[in-house]
Parts: sequence; structure tokens; C-alpha cells
Amino acid sequence: MRKESIIFKNRRLYYLKQQKLPTRVIYKECKNLNQGYRAIKELQVRGAPLIGVFAAYCVYISVKNIKSRNRRVFIRKLNKIMGRLESARPTAVNLSWALKRIKEKVELNKDKEVGGLKNLILKEAKNIHRQDIILCSKMAQAGIKLIKNKDRILTHCNTGFLATSGEGTALSVIYRASRRYKTIKVYVDETRPLLQGSRLTAWELMNRGIDATLISDNMAASLMQKKKIDKIFLGADRITAEGDVANKIGTYNLAVLANFHKIPFYVVAPSSSFDLKINKGVDIPIERRSPDEVRKVLDKIYIAPKKVKVYNPAFDITPHKLIIAIVTDRGVIYPPFKKNIKKLLPNK
Amino acid sequence: MRKESIIFKNRRLYYLKQQKLPTRVIYKECKNLNQGYRAIKELQVRGAPLIGVFAAYCVYISVKNIKSRNRRVFIRKLNKIMGRLESARPTAVNLSWALKRIKEKVELNKDKEVGGLKNLILKEAKNIHRQDIILCSKMAQAGIKLIKNKDRILTHCNTGFLATSGEGTALSVIYRASRRYKTIKVYVDETRPLLQGSRLTAWELMNRGIDATLISDNMAASLMQKKKIDKIFLGADRITAEGDVANKIGTYNLAVLANFHKIPFYVVAPSSSFDLKINKGVDIPIERRSPDEVRKVLDKIYIAPKKVKVYNPAFDITPHKLIIAIVTDRGVIYPPFKKNIKKLLPNK
Repeated sequence: MRKESIIFKNRRLYYLKQQKLPTRVIYKECKNLNQGYRAIKELQVRGAPLIGVFAAYCVYISVKNIKSRNRRVFIRKLNKIMGRLESARPTAVNLSWALKRIKEKVELNKDKEVGGLKNLILKEAKNIHRQDIILCSKMAQAGIKLIKNKDRILTHCNTGFLATSGEGTALSVIYRASRRYKTIKVYVDETRPLLQGSRLTAWELMNRGIDATLISDNMAASLMQKKKIDKIFLGADRITAEGDVANKIGTYNLAVLANFHKIPFYVVAPSSSFDLKINKGVDIPIERRSPDEVRKVLDKIYIAPKKVKVYNPAFDITPHKLIIAIVTDRGVIYPPFKKNIKKLLPNK
Repeated sequence: MRKESIIFKNRRLYYLKQQKLPTRVIYKECKNLNQGYRAIKELQVRGAPLIGVFAAYCVYISVKNIKSRNRRVFIRKLNKIMGRLESARPTAVNLSWALKRIKEKVELNKDKEVGGLKNLILKEAKNIHRQDIILCSKMAQAGIKLIKNKDRILTHCNTGFLATSGEGTALSVIYRASRRYKTIKVYVDETRPLLQGSRLTAWELMNRGIDATLISDNMAASLMQKKKIDKIFLGADRITAEGDVANKIGTYNLAVLANFHKIPFYVVAPSSSFDLKINKGVDIPIERRSPDEVRKVLDKIYIAPKKVKVYNPAFDITPHKLIIAIVTDRGVIYPPFKKNIKKLLPNK
């Protein structure tokens, strides 16, 4: 059965428990603030755009049953709700962005009764949801011209419907291409240490009927040598003014391999991922994560000595020289990136 | 405490149960043929050179208690023992090579009594053991000139005292360098899918007091970009007449990355690893292994959908153009490889 990452229906919110994938496919209803907070905190709902949409609906679910008709009481409770949601993942940009949108909407409507404010919040959550879907669709529309029939595409990490409320960033292009051409083949890097490729991407591609083949990260070079990869499509966490890309660890690895084997390397990201205050990739701060992520698998079993030293950066930096094009919701950006990014995103 | 992969002492054979590493360090005595067969079959004892040495001692352990003094009865039992040991891992070259040496020795001494033959077998097993240690030592001696103080070395898979009865191939060079220079730093690829790097290499380097840092395979490129890797040392399963190298999957990945970042890439292998009947790497048959190795971890937990398609080659091919030098027990071979391999190995 075709799955979605979240479902909002009859004013009820359901989410797919992503931590249980791929072995179990479980939907849970989010009935109150605490459940929403925990779903985000425990990565049951993950992927930057998806968190934003989910949090917006969570606000509505949380205020829906507030009994008081007193505006001031309602606003005070609303702020408390939003503060708690934001604290679930303090560094998630889309989370605070979505909450800010709701806050501004409420502030702009000071004259409304409590009931009206509730409806306003619901409407704004639906807007955020709809806009995320449209954004994915626009990236797909821009990127599909880079794909032709029978392409064999390598991807990394998870950038599909489990990371957004639409069809994703890089995967949205692949999904659209698979509908247009019937014979798109996708290779999926397992993406150690957190295995988003094997746990999430392999599962979601299979769920959509895409021809997916899983590999360990160190097998990509061998596939390229055998000329089994035509293109690489993956996402971005942040893109600088010069077009350098911070993305899941292993991305730079693929970019170097693609360069050596003369395979086109494409990055797909919404325009919100561009951070034009930063020029060069080296200036992007890289999160170093817990050694146990590498020492263990699925936070369950040790695969290495418990005290071994570990180097575990969450992201790496791919210099723009290794990137053929960046696909965005506003179109495809080609080199020279600095000039063309500025042209496409004049307001940033 | 300093560990060894096998111990032969007072005519008793002990082995480290490698399948239990790194979480448990267990030695077991091999008391008879069945135990030896199982140890090899179940990969408790692994690594091509180590299997050869272990099997030779196993033959001795198995014949030690044969009661009959009848030569023909003894030989018949001996052949049965060797047949069974060889069947434990039919494709392991060192295993059949070691057994063949014992067989030839026995055939050359047709006049000896059963007691004399038993001693002869013990002596030959000890010879095989000693020669393996010397081979490792010679590789270390040849390779150490390629290392200087404060080098930060990346390695892949397991090529140390857990794979041989000496100090290993690539790791023997690192061990010797660590004794000469006190500040050698080693980065260890975890080496998916079977995790020989995290399970075995990280453990053995720590056991020898070497400064070891574990990474996921896809982090190597990031380290190179940050100029944290000075050299790469790893082993080889087979080397062709032109110097192309078949080795654990992920080796070619590192070779391309090293080339891009201008980092010297060294292969260390005994002269027995050269297969001069084959010219080019593309002609080496590559074993495709079970999809479940990639779908699961440690053969225990699934990290991917149970039915996802998988590409799982055990080895990849590194073309000689990406290799700076090949370190052997007979010295270091530099390009042009075809000419210099022939010069160093005239008898092959």
C-alpha cells in the first residue's frame, strides 16, 4: 500500500513512526502536545521540511481542545505550546520557521475570537503543508529535464517522502522521472552511520514501486568503474553563496568519485537551503556526533571496541567545482554558481 | 594483555575466537579434527595465511593420538584428516597449500615409522608457522622506509595479526613503524558489510597500543579533504602481472580518493599473492556474496527491507595507475609495474 509520512484527515493528525522502519510500518495518531513533542524529539518524525509541517499541525492539535474563550489565556497557552515544540529539536530551522509563521498570523489577527484563532492556525498549518508539497513538485519539475530514459541513478541518505510532506527533494525528481520513463533504476547508498539509505530510502523507493538496489557506501566506486551509474542525485543541508554544499557525510566522497569517472553530480534543494551570508563551504560549522553512532548499529549492538576513538562528522563539504548543477524550486542553477545563485535568489 | 591469533605451546593448539571480537576475547583449545574443522568453517580462525598455519597444526593435533603403529593405516587416516580440513573452506589457497606441503613431506619420508611421521608433521607445521612470521617481518622491513614520523595512515579491512600468524601484511608495516616512531596515528575504515575494520583491526591496533581512530567508510574523503591522511596502506587478495590489485570492496574507492587528494596509496602483500597468469584486473573473477550481508549487520539485525535488491561484491579492482608502490616480502615494487614485478618474481 502506498504510504505517506504524515496524514491529516478529519482534523486528526497521524504520522509514520520512522524509527521502526523498515522492519515495522506503524502509524500513530498524534493526539496532544506531549505526543507531538516526543515524535519530533525521538526522530519518529524527521527530515527538516517534514518537521516544520508536522509541528504546525501539532500546534493546531494542541490548541483544538483549549476550553477557555479568553483571548489572553489562549495566547498564553499557545506560546507555551510553541515553546515546548521548538525545544524538541532546537537547531531544526524549519521547525522554528513554521512556528514563527503561525505566531505572526495570530498576531496579525488580534481582533479574532478564540474559535477564529483556532481556525486560523489550522488554515496556516494546511498552507505550510500545501506549500511544502508544491516546493517538492517544483524541484521535480525543474530536475526532470536532467534525466533520460533508462538512467541508472545513485542517491545518498534520505531525501524523499519520509523527509518532506511532499515527494522530497532529490527523490522527488526520481519519482517524477519514474512516472515519465518506466525504466529508471536507483542505487541507494546505505549511508552509515545512521543508515538513512538502507532504513528509509530503500523502503520508500520499494513502497513506490521504484527499481531500487541497496549498496554499502564503499561499493559506489566499483559500480562507477563498471559504468553502472549514469547520474548522481542527492540533497543539501546548506548551500553557500559560491555553491559549496554541506550535506550528509559521504556526499563529498561521491562527488570526488563522480568527478574521476566523469559522472554528472546533481544537488537538489529548496531555495530555503541557501545561506548566502556564507561564501565558502569551509566556513560552515560541521556537527560532530556521538562516537557510539559509529561503534554501534541502530543504537543496539556494538560492532567495534567500546572505547575506540571515533571521528564522526554528521556532514561533509562538497566544493562547487565538483557539482554539475543545483536543482531548486526556482529552476536549475549551473556554473558560474556565484553569479547564477545571486540571479535566481535576488531576495536572499 | 598482548594477544595473538593462535598459540602453539607444549604441543597444544589454542586459537582466538575471532567471531566473538571485539565484545569478547575468548581463547579455545583445538583438541581434535572436528574442533579444527569448525574453527575454520565458522570463521573463528580467518585470514588466508593464518588459516594455512592453523590447518597445519590441526593436522598434527589430529594425528597425535592415532594409536595404530601401522604406516598404511596411519597414512589412510592422515589423508582423511587433510581431506576434511580442506573442505572447511574449499577456495582458501593457503589452506590447500599448507596441507599439500605436509603431504609432500610425508611422501618424501616413506621409510619413517609412524612416530617419526608424527614428529615430521609437527616440524613442518612449525616451519609453516615460522615462515609466515618471517614473511610478515620481511614485508614490514621493506615497507617501513615508506613511513616517516608523525604519519597519519588510513587502512581498510583487516591485515594484521588476526589475519596471519605474524604481524600481518599492511599492519605489519604499521606495527614496525609504531615501534620506530612513537607518534604514528592510524585511521581505520569500518569496512562494510562484514566490518573487519571495526570488529578486528580497531581491536588489534588498540591491543598493541597503537593510536587508532575508527571511521565509517564514507568519512575517508572528508578526512583527506582536511589533510588528515598522509598515506594509505592496505592489503591485496590477488595482484596481476600488470600490477592491478583485487582487494576487499572499498579499496578502489580509497584509491580514487587518494589520487584526487594526491595521497600516496600503498599495497602490501606477500609474493604468493601475485597471479602472473592474469594480466589485467578486469579478468579477475569477483565473488558476489549474499544480499543479507548488506541487509543485516553481524548476521543479527536487519537494517534494510528484507526483500530489497542488493549489489554485494566481495572485492573490487584497483588499476595499477592509482598505486604508488607494492610492498612485498622481496622488496618494494614501483612502476613500471609489469617490468618490475617480473624482475622481482622471476620464478612465478
